[in-house]
Amino acid sequence: MSTAVSPLAPTNVPELPPLDGVKLATAAAGIRYKGRTDVLLALLDPGTAVAGVFTQSKCPSAPVEWCRLNLKGGKARALVVNSGNANAFTGKTGRVATALTAKIAAKAIGCKPADIFLASTGVIGEPLDATKFDGVLDQLAEGAVPGGWMDAAKAIMTTDTFPKVATATVKLGKAKVTINGIAKGAGMIAPDMATMLAFVFTDAPIAAPALQSLLKAGVADTFNAVTIDGDTSTSDTLLAFATGAAAANGAPKISKASDIRLKAFVKAFNAVLANLAEQVARDGEGARKLVEIIVDGATSKASARKIAMSIANSPLVKTAIAGEDANWGRVVMAVGKAGEPADRDKLSISFNGIRVAKAGARDPSYNEAEVSKAMKSPEIQIKVALGLGKGRDRVLTCDLTKEYIAINGDYRS
Amino acid sequence: MSTAVSPLAPTNVPELPPLDGVKLATAAAGIRYKGRTDVLLALLDPGTAVAGVFTQSKCPSAPVEWCRLNLKGGKARALVVNSGNANAFTGKTGRVATALTAKIAAKAIGCKPADIFLASTGVIGEPLDATKFDGVLDQLAEGAVPGGWMDAAKAIMTTDTFPKVATATVKLGKAKVTINGIAKGAGMIAPDMATMLAFVFTDAPIAAPALQSLLKAGVADTFNAVTIDGDTSTSDTLLAFATGAAAANGAPKISKASDIRLKAFVKAFNAVLANLAEQVARDGEGARKLVEIIVDGATSKASARKIAMSIANSPLVKTAIAGEDANWGRVVMAVGKAGEPADRDKLSISFNGIRVAKAGARDPSYNEAEVSKAMKSPEIQIKVALGLGKGRDRVLTCDLTKEYIAINGDYRS
Repeated sequence: MSTAVSPLAPTNVPELPPLDGVKLATAAAGIRYKGRTDVLLALLDPGTAVAGVFTQSKCPSAPVEWCRLNLKGGKARALVVNSGNANAFTGKTGRVATALTAKIAAKAIGCKPADIFLASTGVIGEPLDATKFDGVLDQLAEGAVPGGWMDAAKAIMTTDTFPKVATATVKLGKAKVTINGIAKGAGMIAPDMATMLAFVFTDAPIAAPALQSLLKAGVADTFNAVTIDGDTSTSDTLLAFATGAAAANGAPKISKASDIRLKAFVKAFNAVLANLAEQVARDGEGARKLVEIIVDGATSKASARKIAMSIANSPLVKTAIAGEDANWGRVVMAVGKAGEPADRDKLSISFNGIRVAKAGARDPSYNEAEVSKAMKSPEIQIKVALGLGKGRDRVLTCDLTKEYIAINGDYRS
Repeated sequence: MSTAVSPLAPTNVPELPPLDGVKLATAAAGIRYKGRTDVLLALLDPGTAVAGVFTQSKCPSAPVEWCRLNLKGGKARALVVNSGNANAFTGKTGRVATALTAKIAAKAIGCKPADIFLASTGVIGEPLDATKFDGVLDQLAEGAVPGGWMDAAKAIMTTDTFPKVATATVKLGKAKVTINGIAKGAGMIAPDMATMLAFVFTDAPIAAPALQSLLKAGVADTFNAVTIDGDTSTSDTLLAFATGAAAANGAPKISKASDIRLKAFVKAFNAVLANLAEQVARDGEGARKLVEIIVDGATSKASARKIAMSIANSPLVKTAIAGEDANWGRVVMAVGKAGEPADRDKLSISFNGIRVAKAGARDPSYNEAEVSKAMKSPEIQIKVALGLGKGRDRVLTCDLTKEYIAINGDYRS
């Protein structure tokens, strides 16, 4: 497995400020990895609201089932994340492991197991030995501190080549509130070692149902608009926690997502989600190019999304980009196979702003040298104009390189 | 581009017998390649019935549109195939090129342009200069002979590493009839150089509507059950021609696909389709392993197909097989993402007959050494038993290797 940092890693990494109502601690519990941290505990003040969205997989992991079940309460006191073992496809043993982990955490913290949220990422099918958390979580609960966000992001990494953090501060009413997020994921989303996990925390006092609405709306054009290889993990988890601590500074208590006072907050919240999601694409397994696909002129946004995803998931488009080849023929192919309304004779295609095809044929002004130069950029934008309607959408992906095959083909052998 | 023959190429290649009513000729017209044939003319006796199935792409090539239009007549006098240029995404120019090609062929043969069927494979977006066929098709029409099937299969190759032929003889009534087929395709299906094309010929006297029914039924579990990379060409074409010449030997004229006398014929016809389709999988770009995926216990055959295709198209499953890793966790992932009914706790998974997972967890009898040995085989069978119903299906694919990336990423650069 390559350990070189992705060339697409962000160059400016923000320092995340402490966030009232959240304390963090990490430990090396030896779940699978040696010589690195693999457990994160986030302690949440009483009254913290929680929201979550999860994998659409029909075979979800035990922690996903645990979170879904306990989300109904809308309250959280702690988040426990481990890397190295996904506790997925582990049957009854898996359910026993989640229950035991929550029990150990609840005892350490002094709350109900139902207030503990869990996420696991790593190899699947291997039973997770939850007794390893015994003692460890007690220590973490005692040692948790307000800072340490970068350490938290590192503890949840698997095949990631860099930790992923994002932050924003914004006014809610007259009070300043903070949004901190961490994420991991590198092979959208390999069940083996690369499940996407993301956790966003805020001190804004937002009730659970409102937070759930914000999260569901925010994920559509961020995490749900990123694909690395079209493979969906059994464990994808995005949780949002609102401690409400900013109420002490005068932030108004929000009970509805439609509350007009949330406007700036929603924008910042979505920006944090978008930032983390883009970092996942930037760390796509073996990625050498970040690829933005914009489809406009579709009959609807949903149709544009399907076409954009068809392009983003096409191995032939992705290998062409790895080869720095503006192979718009493959883009046409991917448009055609999406099954959505498209008229070849109205289609135009651009790479990094240079139109290569229009009206069903190669653009007469096409200049191979100019396009070849543009394709050497580490960031490639493919724009497809369908000319049918007003539907527009955007997705992010990365190229498909030999390194992807090496990471995923050589992994266990 | 690698020129080594796929290690999965069939070892026994049959010699195809002449088939009454069909004459073949090939030429090097210099469409794109140098030093090799790139045009095939198949002359068909008057009265030949034709049937066809085509790509589902919303952006089909000009020859696909041409064939669809002329299929209504149900009659064919010739098939013209060129490799090197797909005449796809060529707009009006493309339609002009197909019309001109058909006109040149019709004049050479003495028939209507509507009786000429066309297929093109190769690079897309480049205008096809149909004037190159002028003179060439005259010569081919004059020189066409009953044999030469292997030469025909070679003339239509692009990234294929071996020519693909199949044959069967069977009784229709008391007469012996022959079915000969040729195919090409190596990246199911790259629009660039690897469109899937297949042509099946028989001397059986079968009317066009009956032939169309047979073809449509036969393709479902053969060509439509093969995937290399999930990418669908703009040009995929499968045509069947029935010359009817065997009527002279006493073969009964068949007007309905449901005719009971067709029983043996249908079996042989489907076997030829299955044989050619399997050869396409065996020549998958960069393939080192032929992979058969069987899903049973699904709620329906359609559901089993969707799950099998989800597994077959998963880059993570395919790279794991390339790495000779019985990574059933990735199979679970692919089952889960298919969106079809599946119950993790009832699922069992086998590789080459060795059960590795059952009832939602690793099989207790799992033996890593035994499984690792089995994974070294060039043919891998993945069997998934869902335990829900009686739906069963089977698809073929191949592994995903660095060579695939090299072929498709390094191609134009």
